[in-house]
Amino acid sequence: MNEFDLIATYFRPLASGFSGALGLADDAALLTTAPKGKELVITKDAISEGIHFIGDEDPALIAQKLLRTNLSDLAAKGATPWVYFLAMMLPKDTKPLWIERFAEGLAEDQKQFSIHLAGGDTTATLGMKSFSITAIGTVPTGQMLRRNGAKAGDIIVVSGTLSDSALGLRCLQGNANPYVVETDQIFVKERYLLPQPRLELGLQLYGIASAAMDISDGLVQDISHLCHASGVGAAIEMEKIPLSPAAKHWVMLEPELLSLALNGGDDYELLFTVPPERIHLLPKNCTPIGVITRELGVNVFGKDSKQLIINKTGFQHFS
Amino acid sequence: MNEFDLIATYFRPLASGFSGALGLADDAALLTTAPKGKELVITKDAISEGIHFIGDEDPALIAQKLLRTNLSDLAAKGATPWVYFLAMMLPKDTKPLWIERFAEGLAEDQKQFSIHLAGGDTTATLGMKSFSITAIGTVPTGQMLRRNGAKAGDIIVVSGTLSDSALGLRCLQGNANPYVVETDQIFVKERYLLPQPRLELGLQLYGIASAAMDISDGLVQDISHLCHASGVGAAIEMEKIPLSPAAKHWVMLEPELLSLALNGGDDYELLFTVPPERIHLLPKNCTPIGVITRELGVNVFGKDSKQLIINKTGFQHFS
Repeated sequence: MNEFDLIATYFRPLASGFSGALGLADDAALLTTAPKGKELVITKDAISEGIHFIGDEDPALIAQKLLRTNLSDLAAKGATPWVYFLAMMLPKDTKPLWIERFAEGLAEDQKQFSIHLAGGDTTATLGMKSFSITAIGTVPTGQMLRRNGAKAGDIIVVSGTLSDSALGLRCLQGNANPYVVETDQIFVKERYLLPQPRLELGLQLYGIASAAMDISDGLVQDISHLCHASGVGAAIEMEKIPLSPAAKHWVMLEPELLSLALNGGDDYELLFTVPPERIHLLPKNCTPIGVITRELGVNVFGKDSKQLIINKTGFQHFS
Repeated sequence: MNEFDLIATYFRPLASGFSGALGLADDAALLTTAPKGKELVITKDAISEGIHFIGDEDPALIAQKLLRTNLSDLAAKGATPWVYFLAMMLPKDTKPLWIERFAEGLAEDQKQFSIHLAGGDTTATLGMKSFSITAIGTVPTGQMLRRNGAKAGDIIVVSGTLSDSALGLRCLQGNANPYVVETDQIFVKERYLLPQPRLELGLQLYGIASAAMDISDGLVQDISHLCHASGVGAAIEMEKIPLSPAAKHWVMLEPELLSLALNGGDDYELLFTVPPERIHLLPKNCTPIGVITRELGVNVFGKDSKQLIINKTGFQHFS
């Protein structure tokens, strides 16, 4: 099967819902501009085997995670998904069945998230599998949620629970604590393999959030980017960071893993700031975890209000 | 140097000309819709070390070729470049100096082709270097050149000269015929390393071309795609295919290399069809090479009007 057969068989059906894709049979896609009163939000993410995915997962899950990491960026900007472009860099021995499953994963998520394939490229690689998606969403003109609007005194909020995904990766790598029960392991593995882009929440943040982004590199690193863009600092209360029951169970067995809530990565939850006068408007499943400060830098405080020092391998009390 | 330092140092300056890039400091870029009366044309290309580039080239040339292959797609659609998104998948030992040169190549071409970096992603890979660009151009509404408009009787035209790039790759791989003079070798190597996107020509084809695309996979393969999209066939006269003086010299030494004009790839010239009544409007540096036929299939004829059979290693007379 050559590149063109692959596209016709597995990917053209994914483009059937968007006429500007031109059936994936032209050099480019045509976007007849944004719908009236809307602007376009564009994001691009790339993933590589052995770094962002393990390689022996169900190919459908790899495809879905790739698409969903892009959708998470759109969610964080308050955007509604529209179309996406896919580049696949595949070793020459990649089996058609692998690609078929990959395309099935995309098809499933296209339905769930109302987004269409509009174009892309398929090429060979001498290395491992790599993929890149460029996703385009729409926002009402002037309404895109930005990283740079946080002000001192704003409340820092996160959606869902943190650290699940990093714990899930430990399970998949065979490093699960043997006392962690099976149902907890299944839950955290699913959180790693199939993140849930918070698209509905993003739409609810218009007029509430002063700044927003998604958490992909770990809470502390990501909030430091938001703070940098806004010219402010952050004080986070460790105790307030929301954990799932599964993560709580695991942390009771291995307390040092609590640091994954700060630096675990792959959470794909939303991180946003809310001026205090609007905090009563906070949507469901969102948790205030700290406050924006005038002083620059990100500080995390333990339950005794003592400052914690965070480094790559965890955190320790500041003495 | 981490991902964020890299972006701030080498890539943020490339985004300074486009406010919607948000300084590469947000999750996504914001496109305040297309300029009035315009539509967006979007293309995506990916390249991998060892497949699309050798690896020991000047990194600036790798960057420029990547950008220019996308610009060639925009040229073929009659689009004017606007912004692009870049994904870089880099091995962990990639030197900052390498990335600096890569960014310098982009900066040079951004100036030359009036296009701006608007966003992207930088990630590690366990394999070899890979890159993907998504480029966005604008066309007057309803004017995009398509692949599917060719009609029987239309004249098939190509820009520039074919086969130079494939010959250039032979030189770079150490397979140059020893009797090919140095100046010819320099010319064809440059054609491989630094293609010239035919953007001005693309703009001149409105109202002239009935179908258009760029030649990247070799003339025969590409025209077969154009024919497939248009529901027609093609008859090409081998003798009419334009060759550079360098290619002519080389082919005199090795006649079998003439087949590279049909299947060499990497030409990045435009391939388009023109109704006979408009052929007097043909822009400069364009050469008619055949005619669109009602009968499906692509046929190539030699100087005795005998049909040639093309295969992967060359072509032969049909007996």
